[in-house]
Amino acid sequence: MWQYIENGSITSVEEFSASGIFCGIKKKNKDLALIYSKFPCVAAGTFTLNKVKAAPVLISKKIIDCNSQNLNSASGKVRAILINSGNANACTGQQGYNDAIEIQNYCAEKLFIKPEELIISSTGVIGQRLPVETIKNGINKIIPTLNPNGGLNAAEAILTTDLKPKSFAIKVKLTNGEITIGGICKGSGMIMPNMATMLAFLTTDVVIEKSLLQKALSIAVDNSFNKISVDGETSTNDMVIILSNGISNIFIEENSEDYIIFVNALTDICQTMAKAIVADGEGATKFITLSIKNAKTKNDAFQASKAIANSPLVKTAFYGKDANWGRILSAIGNSGIEFEPELVAIKFDDVDILAQNYTVVVDEEKAKEVLSKKEFTVEVNLNMGRESTIYWTCDLTEDYIKINANYRT
Amino acid sequence: MWQYIENGSITSVEEFSASGIFCGIKKKNKDLALIYSKFPCVAAGTFTLNKVKAAPVLISKKIIDCNSQNLNSASGKVRAILINSGNANACTGQQGYNDAIEIQNYCAEKLFIKPEELIISSTGVIGQRLPVETIKNGINKIIPTLNPNGGLNAAEAILTTDLKPKSFAIKVKLTNGEITIGGICKGSGMIMPNMATMLAFLTTDVVIEKSLLQKALSIAVDNSFNKISVDGETSTNDMVIILSNGISNIFIEENSEDYIIFVNALTDICQTMAKAIVADGEGATKFITLSIKNAKTKNDAFQASKAIANSPLVKTAFYGKDANWGRILSAIGNSGIEFEPELVAIKFDDVDILAQNYTVVVDEEKAKEVLSKKEFTVEVNLNMGRESTIYWTCDLTEDYIKINANYRT
Repeated sequence: MWQYIENGSITSVEEFSASGIFCGIKKKNKDLALIYSKFPCVAAGTFTLNKVKAAPVLISKKIIDCNSQNLNSASGKVRAILINSGNANACTGQQGYNDAIEIQNYCAEKLFIKPEELIISSTGVIGQRLPVETIKNGINKIIPTLNPNGGLNAAEAILTTDLKPKSFAIKVKLTNGEITIGGICKGSGMIMPNMATMLAFLTTDVVIEKSLLQKALSIAVDNSFNKISVDGETSTNDMVIILSNGISNIFIEENSEDYIIFVNALTDICQTMAKAIVADGEGATKFITLSIKNAKTKNDAFQASKAIANSPLVKTAFYGKDANWGRILSAIGNSGIEFEPELVAIKFDDVDILAQNYTVVVDEEKAKEVLSKKEFTVEVNLNMGRESTIYWTCDLTEDYIKINANYRT
Repeated sequence: MWQYIENGSITSVEEFSASGIFCGIKKKNKDLALIYSKFPCVAAGTFTLNKVKAAPVLISKKIIDCNSQNLNSASGKVRAILINSGNANACTGQQGYNDAIEIQNYCAEKLFIKPEELIISSTGVIGQRLPVETIKNGINKIIPTLNPNGGLNAAEAILTTDLKPKSFAIKVKLTNGEITIGGICKGSGMIMPNMATMLAFLTTDVVIEKSLLQKALSIAVDNSFNKISVDGETSTNDMVIILSNGISNIFIEENSEDYIIFVNALTDICQTMAKAIVADGEGATKFITLSIKNAKTKNDAFQASKAIANSPLVKTAFYGKDANWGRILSAIGNSGIEFEPELVAIKFDDVDILAQNYTVVVDEEKAKEVLSKKEFTVEVNLNMGRESTIYWTCDLTEDYIKINANYRT
């Protein structure tokens, strides 16, 4: 139904342009990104649940929420997204809020759009004032560089401790035509379920009502970004935003066949982005897919997977290639779900590790072979019911400590 | 009211003997401990809340719970505690349960006591069968070595990845005489509040009803072992046990002045033990006292302290001597408590870091000086109410990863 475009990005969707430049917020590397749509876009978004919300989150959330009440008014549309890395503008109080508004007004004016048509987003160090003049100079510099192939540059400019830019796009066949979805994201540490624990920006070209786009995005996010964990932290700044410019002229209506395809495709690209974040987690050397099977309830499956994904003891054992299934059981035991430890069976890829009734069937050599791979699946069969889930995580290594012990220096 | 005895231990209480030997469960170092009381003891205990409970926990919990229903019957008394390290006998199913019972019966017979008078406890690797014959030989070897100065040897024998034996005793002045409380414990990783996230064994000589001793122990544990965290994990095996042989002839009655002194003294020695566990946390280089002030509710204070104590980002920042107060705020923001971020003030020892309204007052040099110390206090004033709490934690270092990546090898 859909296929990935080579070197795809947010600018793979027609009439979107973007750019990423270095303007001096960081000491080096690109630190300012701009995404621009020629046409007004329907917009949807999800935001961090941390009670401490950065100024750009408060401002951008207001744009998304407020627009929800003006579904069909032209003023409810979004035209651009400005993102800076290197400074989160979080825990900066009224001053930080004023700084963010100043940046938003300045950039909107330069783009000849209204401030409420410009989503703003920041990532980086917490608690330091935004370098307003530096960013204003950056805005003057970046606007002329906007271009229809700028997605990858934008993807680079939103990184912090990430090692690789994360940029994707898919072509999706619907019943009467083809549409495109593009996305860029950043992650690294502070990755933990429950929205929106990183930055992700998506573009598409369908014609869709705002409320339906929000619904589709929420489903996609719940099944992707909310099912990953690097270190169990939820940041003050994170958001997922999708803009749709409608230029495909293909209508997506609720409960239609096309809506189902669209949601599945959107979920797929979000999962690809989420998995890229985990694979690029701070210090991570292994990418682990947790498959929880036969839980009593959907929530039990989710809680069990989250507990395993966040257990430092499990994550260090994976790093040490140690088939320590006891730590997996212990993590589930702490998750609060209903289960019987003696009913649990565990597999690493297709290698049986533990059978029911604590029957240890692990062949340590074969287990080590799986654990030596860069990617593998841990299947935990709870044998309590029929609900299942998938969750993605990584190992915990010395490099995570190094990166985070010296983040501000 | 009380003072610590130099080189004090469980055997500082008269008529208790103990020993610790190497019997071959581990590759090296002492691995079997025995605590023995000449007289039947009133016993109380608290146990892990992990749903996956090791066989010795199930058996010993039954002894403590069952006795609760026979307050004054002689058969409700405990005479000894047998502890092995190197093997947790957890996730071992019916076989593990049978093994534990066999060890309990064997040791009880050799001590000429009933099996239900013998508490058993294990710590070490999960999911491997207990080496029953090795331990039986160990029991034959350890009984003749029981002696009234054996507490420190027992403290050594219960260690796993701990670096130092943890052994203490206090003399407590009551209104009509003096009593003694002794204790040994082990911890290291898998230390997290909510009982009983390590092993601790206490002895005393007061005359007290079982239910009152349980009440006193629960209060002491709530204010000590339940307020520490190394890595946020709760193990399958942990327990705190106290035995009282009554030989001081000093009665402790509910609501008496002596009861209050006794609870305070018991809490003090439990805090000393708990702090020793944190200071000896896996790979820890810093001991941090969190002081949460002016929370709206007692539970808010506790949840905020727990969230800070368990945040990998906060813990790595402490390791890196980074005054990253933003991560502290972000951790509180994820704790779910009611608070206003802009009301929070933060101090490291007596150095102001953050004042209200996000006023950053940190002198980075002075902050670094505090963070370079091996012990310091982080005070977080929520300015939301009048409830406070203290919590103890440590930093997160590369050595934690190394120790846990290679635990079974």
